[in-house]
Amino acid sequence: MASDATYVEGRAVDIDETDRLISSEKVEGTAVYNRTGDSLGSVHHLMIDKITGRVEYAVMSFGGFLGIGESYHPLPWRILKYDVRQGGYVVDLDRRRLEGAPSYSTTDLPNWSDSAYGHRIDDYYGVPPYTF
Amino acid sequence: MASDATYVEGRAVDIDETDRLISSEKVEGTAVYNRTGDSLGSVHHLMIDKITGRVEYAVMSFGGFLGIGESYHPLPWRILKYDVRQGGYVVDLDRRRLEGAPSYSTTDLPNWSDSAYGHRIDDYYGVPPYTF
Repeated sequence: MASDATYVEGRAVDIDETDRLISSEKVEGTAVYNRTGDSLGSVHHLMIDKITGRVEYAVMSFGGFLGIGESYHPLPWRILKYDVRQGGYVVDLDRRRLEGAPSYSTTDLPNWSDSAYGHRIDDYYGVPPYTF
Repeated sequence: MASDATYVEGRAVDIDETDRLISSEKVEGTAVYNRTGDSLGSVHHLMIDKITGRVEYAVMSFGGFLGIGESYHPLPWRILKYDVRQGGYVVDLDRRRLEGAPSYSTTDLPNWSDSAYGHRIDDYYGVPPYTF
């Protein structure tokens, strides 16, 4: 099965796209597009709920150079749909709507321990709380 | 709040340890110990269920050099408990039990798309399926 492996930083990783499971290494760095095919950025990292084990947010980054001027947009994980054809995630979101969304820079980090911050993101994207 | 930031590869990341949320960047690379304080390895990456958004496995790596000779042990996410004092995850697992656990190397990757593989891991560690 080694032929199906992908290599990240010189190391083999799991077959990273299966029916149900995906590797965090595959998610991080994957491009995010809107429905008209514009590139919005790429997934920088994930925010995981420690109690439920659920991925709550994919933090998308774009712009900047070596972290300077980069901006971060936390997107509810559930609004990302993987599109095989584009090889990236697609969100139903135009640039203007994204510009008005909760975001931060490297010098202005959010306070994730304040649950109101997460609620503000969920509300902006119209995502209800998990019910299962 | 920038003073609370951590820096990974020269980039600032979120405040990565909150009441509920943790960054995948914080999890990856974190040491794993058993209850007697032996280092078992470190978290290499996570396997996430695409449908439920849940982290199912933390794949722990140890040994090797530049990926050669490295071995990977998928651990059910739910058996990892973070220990602030040790600065790492603690699992109730001695080395002998770990040696007999499902594992793979870079030349012998598992077939995650076969759900029997995940079930074998869960069974080995005595972890029931998620019920919520």
